[in-house]
Amino acid sequence: MAELLLILNIIGTVAFAVSGAMTAIKKEMDLLGVTIVGAITAVGGGIMRDIIIGKIPPDAFTDPSYVLIACISAIVVFTYVYFRASGYEKISGAKFQKIVLLADTVGLAAFSVLGVEVAFNAGDGPRLFLTVFLGTITGVGGGVLRDLLVGDKPYILCKHIYACASIAGALVCALLWDFSGQSVATVIGASTVIIIRLLAIHFEWNLPRIRHHGIS
Amino acid sequence: MAELLLILNIIGTVAFAVSGAMTAIKKEMDLLGVTIVGAITAVGGGIMRDIIIGKIPPDAFTDPSYVLIACISAIVVFTYVYFRASGYEKISGAKFQKIVLLADTVGLAAFSVLGVEVAFNAGDGPRLFLTVFLGTITGVGGGVLRDLLVGDKPYILCKHIYACASIAGALVCALLWDFSGQSVATVIGASTVIIIRLLAIHFEWNLPRIRHHGIS
Amino acid sequence: MAELLLILNIIGTVAFAVSGAMTAIKKEMDLLGVTIVGAITAVGGGIMRDIIIGKIPPDAFTDPSYVLIACISAIVVFTYVYFRASGYEKISGAKFQKIVLLADTVGLAAFSVLGVEVAFNAGDGPRLFLTVFLGTITGVGGGVLRDLLVGDKPYILCKHIYACASIAGALVCALLWDFSGQSVATVIGASTVIIIRLLAIHFEWNLPRIRHHGIS
Repeated sequence: MAELLLILNIIGTVAFAVSGAMTAIKKEMDLLGVTIVGAITAVGGGIMRDIIIGKIPPDAFTDPSYVLIACISAIVVFTYVYFRASGYEKISGAKFQKIVLLADTVGLAAFSVLGVEVAFNAGDGPRLFLTVFLGTITGVGGGVLRDLLVGDKPYILCKHIYACASIAGALVCALLWDFSGQSVATVIGASTVIIIRLLAIHFEWNLPRIRHHGIS
Repeated sequence: MAELLLILNIIGTVAFAVSGAMTAIKKEMDLLGVTIVGAITAVGGGIMRDIIIGKIPPDAFTDPSYVLIACISAIVVFTYVYFRASGYEKISGAKFQKIVLLADTVGLAAFSVLGVEVAFNAGDGPRLFLTVFLGTITGVGGGVLRDLLVGDKPYILCKHIYACASIAGALVCALLWDFSGQSVATVIGASTVIIIRLLAIHFEWNLPRIRHHGIS
Repeated sequence: MAELLLILNIIGTVAFAVSGAMTAIKKEMDLLGVTIVGAITAVGGGIMRDIIIGKIPPDAFTDPSYVLIACISAIVVFTYVYFRASGYEKISGAKFQKIVLLADTVGLAAFSVLGVEVAFNAGDGPRLFLTVFLGTITGVGGGVLRDLLVGDKPYILCKHIYACASIAGALVCALLWDFSGQSVATVIGASTVIIIRLLAIHFEWNLPRIRHHGIS
């Protein structure tokens, strides 16, 4: 159980750091900018969660190993693209995008259930709304900060059932927590995120939106 | 007194949620994005205030009723626009805009004096600057987050005496608090916000700004 | 030592307020917007630091003298530009830019070592990563908030070794803290920031970045 979470956490950190680094490279930021955006994408959601529940200083600052993992991941991506003439094209290619998308999905799943776990351990009894919210903000918070920093419209507000998958997984995990035990709740919650997200990508599900070209 | 604040609070929550939802619809965000932006616009100012005074977790998470009211308001706006071909035009029309502007003014007034009330109840004696600041951030914070999330330049920094009205109302409320009693201070503070704002809209008051087309 | 920090702190506050005010004037914000952006640029880094270490409410709210200094600086800049026909051109001129850049460098140096000092005084023993991070966020946080508020891509992520200088100075200061005493650590740390920044400006150092016109 602890090992499972640890592994998911590391995969999520690397995946989010890579997605942040690639976004920053697309905006022509420099090496430090790419590293910072990568690190904030990876640990930003957890920091927002810790500030909301009063875990001060946030975990990311007292145990910097995840920040370190994220920085190294971002620097590796930057170096790969920088030293190979065709690196940027490769990194933008369909195959690489697919790997990032899959890793990102695993990361979203891991961070969403991790947030639920932190919320339960913070005590104060069961408050379903707060618990699900903390799970979701742990999962999607880093991506929102990434988009704000590089000046994009936040991805989760526009596309692909992203936050929906996180909310559903956190809700399933929180509801099962007392009935089925932590381990089962964690696995089923994380699986819920992954399944919804993969189905949404495969079938190109999107939430309804209102188009109004040329009106506003 | 308590009922008055409750009613103002609900009106403000609905009005800010509607303004957030409409801004998100204009940016072609999907149903979830519209709901999230609506909710953050409504409760974001209170969350910023609670984090600054150390009320952890913030009220919005322990008592989710206002988040619920905001989400429902945003979903109603989205549904109305989505299912009526002419909904978007109607919602952008002058009459509807006027209603939103009025409700928004009432909400700004309610949130500004609510922030002052929370600051006084947080104890630690009278610190005028902190009290007025907390009133103002409760009033305008949600709108700033809304504009950052959808990628607009923050409205309060550009237009229409908006933050000025909030600062003036919070200052009046804080100064009267000990002299005239809470109820009177609240009513006069809120009225100050509404009167300044309505006068500013009617007479098209704006603060001075420096125009420099083609220079920078 | 205390006087030195006080003087550096005031210079940094004024310089950051001026840089925030000028950025807001370039975006044609009104008088209140210019004042708010100036104040947030000056005290925003310190507020982020205080929230992360749990110093609630942050210093800037309990002792508003620095907010006051920042607001007055911003209003003076606005007034100067507003009432002199040629004010905006002068303020954009090479000589004025150079003064701001120098003052900004001194401010970055002062705020970076101030953040390290606050981190050590917050107790909990030496945690190098957290200490350096707090120094850096105190130094660069206000500038990031300024750029987010006016809709620019954060300057520190794109240009000129800016955050690098802050990180290096905070690291030097933190490493020397126990060996050489506070005063020496503060002076050497601040000097490190200033020297790196001046060298970077003079020799036009920049971190590597990946250009890809027309690809993405």
